[in-house]
Amino acid sequence: MPSIVTLTTDFGRSDHFAGVMKGVILGICPGAPIVDITHECGAYDIDEAAYTIAQTYRYFPPKTVHVVVVDPGVGTARRPIVVEAAGQFFVGPDNGVFSLVLSSEKHKVRVITNQNHFLHPVSQTFHGRDIFAPVAAHLANGISPARIGKAIDDYEQKKPAAGAVLKIDHFGNIVINFRSSDFPRGRFALRIGRRKVTRLAANYAQFGPGQLFAIAGSSGYIEISAGQASAAKLLGVSPGFVVKLER
Amino acid sequence: MPSIVTLTTDFGRSDHFAGVMKGVILGICPGAPIVDITHECGAYDIDEAAYTIAQTYRYFPPKTVHVVVVDPGVGTARRPIVVEAAGQFFVGPDNGVFSLVLSSEKHKVRVITNQNHFLHPVSQTFHGRDIFAPVAAHLANGISPARIGKAIDDYEQKKPAAGAVLKIDHFGNIVINFRSSDFPRGRFALRIGRRKVTRLAANYAQFGPGQLFAIAGSSGYIEISAGQASAAKLLGVSPGFVVKLER
Amino acid sequence: MPSIVTLTTDFGRSDHFAGVMKGVILGICPGAPIVDITHECGAYDIDEAAYTIAQTYRYFPPKTVHVVVVDPGVGTARRPIVVEAAGQFFVGPDNGVFSLVLSSEKHKVRVITNQNHFLHPVSQTFHGRDIFAPVAAHLANGISPARIGKAIDDYEQKKPAAGAVLKIDHFGNIVINFRSSDFPRGRFALRIGRRKVTRLAANYAQFGPGQLFAIAGSSGYIEISAGQASAAKLLGVSPGFVVKLER
Repeated sequence: MPSIVTLTTDFGRSDHFAGVMKGVILGICPGAPIVDITHECGAYDIDEAAYTIAQTYRYFPPKTVHVVVVDPGVGTARRPIVVEAAGQFFVGPDNGVFSLVLSSEKHKVRVITNQNHFLHPVSQTFHGRDIFAPVAAHLANGISPARIGKAIDDYEQKKPAAGAVLKIDHFGNIVINFRSSDFPRGRFALRIGRRKVTRLAANYAQFGPGQLFAIAGSSGYIEISAGQASAAKLLGVSPGFVVKLER
Repeated sequence: MPSIVTLTTDFGRSDHFAGVMKGVILGICPGAPIVDITHECGAYDIDEAAYTIAQTYRYFPPKTVHVVVVDPGVGTARRPIVVEAAGQFFVGPDNGVFSLVLSSEKHKVRVITNQNHFLHPVSQTFHGRDIFAPVAAHLANGISPARIGKAIDDYEQKKPAAGAVLKIDHFGNIVINFRSSDFPRGRFALRIGRRKVTRLAANYAQFGPGQLFAIAGSSGYIEISAGQASAAKLLGVSPGFVVKLER
Repeated sequence: MPSIVTLTTDFGRSDHFAGVMKGVILGICPGAPIVDITHECGAYDIDEAAYTIAQTYRYFPPKTVHVVVVDPGVGTARRPIVVEAAGQFFVGPDNGVFSLVLSSEKHKVRVITNQNHFLHPVSQTFHGRDIFAPVAAHLANGISPARIGKAIDDYEQKKPAAGAVLKIDHFGNIVINFRSSDFPRGRFALRIGRRKVTRLAANYAQFGPGQLFAIAGSSGYIEISAGQASAAKLLGVSPGFVVKLER
């Protein structure tokens, strides 16, 4: 049975882009189960893509191939890469989208050079279709990653600052770069702009509508949330903003 | 061949949530066809989820497993349940999301208690990933629902009022809780706010742009629609609003 | 193995419509891989659907069945059709959605008349569910298109004007009806409203943020784009607008 292929992009859903990538994958690897993680990463938002795929891969079986295409430098000298980590594969541009996977897992990174696995002619603007999708499909078919290209060690890797807002989710929960496992057990204060959050909730329904609280989110990080409301809207916060922890 | 698993949630599409559920399902039940019904139910909108799944299940083959996660009470005492009805399975929280299935079909409802089928550790905030997805995958694999938990009869069930707006669809059609099969054949008036709709159309293109009419929708309910325009925007109507029928 | 079925509609993602079509398809053709191209064509926007499917089919394997449902005339006298072209099938209304496929490929067009392949009762408002999905599923199962209905030659076909804006993509790139292969090699000017674009870029990152340029897009057409910004917003352009080429 072919491996699963997942897709994480900033393509949105109104174009043919994601559909075309699936056609290319199924043409090379018939029967591959394809899973959309999201196509709604912010346009050119490498950090959001890095967070999204890091939240995702642990829940997929071995040999899954994760394709991530948030790629403002498509067609320039930035390299296409394959990462082997956690018994899975990660395919995308060398621009930091795999940073959080790389910092969590033992890994090998290869630069994609073998053009036999590309779709020709290769466009300057859509490597998702012409390079990443076909390479992923060949990996899902079981070819050896050594046939894709050589190992490198000068790949891109970014580290989010402690306390940085990693993600605003669909419900307006603010995911912060504090691991729940490291969070203080006793009293604490999270300073976010002029506001201070001092309560830790056991679930989203514990406090009343519109009330702010911290919670150990399903992501493994601390979130600032509000009862049946968007904490991000209440606080006017966006990704990159930094939250201070006081004890 | 494994059963189909469908997903209906309020997760939106910009996060990893739905993708992660699919990873969990495919890890337990490789090859399961997974169908997104929608991830765009209104946040916490149990009634919309109830309408959506009730419109859906009849068109799926026997043994399909429908997962519905609109779950404002996640992590509280609200119970996770499995419904057996119409030769299919329904998995989700006991908060009314299956109300319209329960009122249409003979059914058995079980509370999910067997933690062997959960993903551990179980978070307080994402039972879609930790309880509903793995239980659905085990059902798709063919385990007996009796192994999930015991039958109960004090489950949640809501009934929409006659004339209540059940749904505003993507085109702005207003779906109303009047069954088309019960609707008067002769003259009628639907009072909606200060406006009155008295025409029944045979198709959406019968009346000119912006003109209001009633129509027997594909849902089995009467809709108020407008020629190539959003009736809901024209009338300023939202779900829950009540329409009066006069003859 | 059953053929791939693709879906291109204006249904949006917040309703059950696309999910129900998938249930119908999988009931008739279990195991069919179903690929969403997009459900976010503009409501009733036949031209956008025609562009989308024309950009898509070449990347899918032989015998793929493409279903396109942008169908303002559903329930009227407009005919349902199957197009055989490029070794694939196209199923949808006879309203021009297949115009760009028809103008690129040798083809045979059949009117769908064999009601044995419909879902009964056929509604007046949702032929995607009742006609197009089941016919597509039977084609994916391998039935002969001759069993669907007779060949016709008075089908609908539209031609976009030279220079017409075909599509605004998710990134705000403006796709124009000039084939890249026919575009002048030397100096040129694209007049778009009061602005003039005279630079041709090799990739999207070549010019600075907000700067306008032309580029040979992955679509095979010339695009007007802007560095990490939406050219369509900068220029206030929408589909149908006409761009003039001067040399």
